[in-house]
Amino acid sequence: MNIDDYKKLVNSTLETYFSQEIQKAKYDKTMWQAMQYTTLLGGKRLRAIFCLEACRIFSNSYEQALASACAIEMLHAQSLIHDDLPCMDNDDLRRGKPSNHKVFGEAMAVLAGDALISLGAQTIIERTPAYVDTKILIEVVNLYLKSAGAFGIVAGQCADIEAEKNIQTVDFEHLKYIHTYKTAALFECSILAGAMLGGASKYELDLMQEFSRNFGLAFQAYDDILDVISTTDELGKTAGKDEKENKATFVTLFGLDYAKEKFSELIFNCHDILKKAGVESQIFLQILDQMCERVK
Amino acid sequence: MNIDDYKKLVNSTLETYFSQEIQKAKYDKTMWQAMQYTTLLGGKRLRAIFCLEACRIFSNSYEQALASACAIEMLHAQSLIHDDLPCMDNDDLRRGKPSNHKVFGEAMAVLAGDALISLGAQTIIERTPAYVDTKILIEVVNLYLKSAGAFGIVAGQCADIEAEKNIQTVDFEHLKYIHTYKTAALFECSILAGAMLGGASKYELDLMQEFSRNFGLAFQAYDDILDVISTTDELGKTAGKDEKENKATFVTLFGLDYAKEKFSELIFNCHDILKKAGVESQIFLQILDQMCERVK
Repeated sequence: MNIDDYKKLVNSTLETYFSQEIQKAKYDKTMWQAMQYTTLLGGKRLRAIFCLEACRIFSNSYEQALASACAIEMLHAQSLIHDDLPCMDNDDLRRGKPSNHKVFGEAMAVLAGDALISLGAQTIIERTPAYVDTKILIEVVNLYLKSAGAFGIVAGQCADIEAEKNIQTVDFEHLKYIHTYKTAALFECSILAGAMLGGASKYELDLMQEFSRNFGLAFQAYDDILDVISTTDELGKTAGKDEKENKATFVTLFGLDYAKEKFSELIFNCHDILKKAGVESQIFLQILDQMCERVK
Repeated sequence: MNIDDYKKLVNSTLETYFSQEIQKAKYDKTMWQAMQYTTLLGGKRLRAIFCLEACRIFSNSYEQALASACAIEMLHAQSLIHDDLPCMDNDDLRRGKPSNHKVFGEAMAVLAGDALISLGAQTIIERTPAYVDTKILIEVVNLYLKSAGAFGIVAGQCADIEAEKNIQTVDFEHLKYIHTYKTAALFECSILAGAMLGGASKYELDLMQEFSRNFGLAFQAYDDILDVISTTDELGKTAGKDEKENKATFVTLFGLDYAKEKFSELIFNCHDILKKAGVESQIFLQILDQMCERVK
């Protein structure tokens, strides 16, 4: 499987799932349509690909991670829907299309996001193949739940909101906390869930966690850099927002050069950890290379 | 254990849990405070009590259901926080105190609600005693997830929003759908989770599900009736809102007399099912009696 095969598999699985539910729905059809809208809005499916590939690396098969990969994309869509709300980042555009609340209204966007959180975990429980050990299944569900909430994305979002109140006092530790939870947590969930379902050892899981954290921070630095060097068209979302909105990012706090340097350092760490873990994955390498290409 | 003992146990368990997390928190303290605020705002703890007592009925012990009982109260708090948001019911008062977004702001209220959804499921996984069978644990978690989202509360909320658009077309079936998901789903989760953890048989679980659905609808009728016969002071939330806001309720659609009649019928069914199941619970009976008292 190459990146594109994985992406198609995830998209078609999600499409089938949502269209089945929309067909069945009667009084709550709009909720399912709102959930489907952002989940299927496109995107690189990086998190799902990491999940499937991490599973393949350790077991030579990715099927047992497909439910988790789809779940993580649902969770990612949830975070985008709530992020774009007027009371949050107030963004009208997402992947070049109107954001969820612009299409379905604010109330429906709040609810669709809420429903995606639990639907993801439910998908892992109900759609992971029965041959997966129940104890591993519970661990994967818990990993998902932690990264979804107060020990993951939401913790990062809140630390971010706190930072905005007084951006002068934000130091590197605070910024790292924001990015580790807001961004790296979901990559960590993807990669560890895949590795667990692939039967990775404790030692391998530790290294994959280290990889995820470095990758997550690199990805955030990449996102921060693109925000200043790209146009709104290129990004599919409003460019140059971080500075305007007083966001704490690698670029706004430490400058573009520092952000690029940090990005390179983190990508170097990623390669280093993969070597140490003896992981051979063209897909992991391609993802790292593609990011380096765009930041250059 | 009587109703008050159960309530105290749930409150003190939740208090300990949140205060530990608040103490540990650094950059995301406000998120934990916002989560704690609404979860500990008081309330009758009916859902938690049902969960603990359902477990006791079938096993003579309630300890194994304590984590689930607390989780359901977290989920209930989440639904209140998001319900009160300006884009939803826009209510400034909850249990006689300022609602969550009035204290912490809208963004934090959205995030605190999000985090409570996953925290509840995580609490079930991490705090249910290890002697509980893993298969039962997974079933309880899935029950929680279903009632939290697109197959529970959120489905009911969306059907409710759809109803408001054209209240003239709402028939009894539509209203029943709203109430079954918006209100009964969480009672069903409480009672079935408790019964499962108490080792109830398939036959007993089916009867408990029937009880929950009748109780859930009775509780909603009760709530609809109180909205018109009580003052804001008595309710701790704004009275008379349903009619003003074009809400589809037993009272607004079919009148107060019909709602009272329906309420009595549903309570009668509850008693009937308990007898059929051979369930002896002073606590279940007291809850039913107290509701009848207030509606008279």
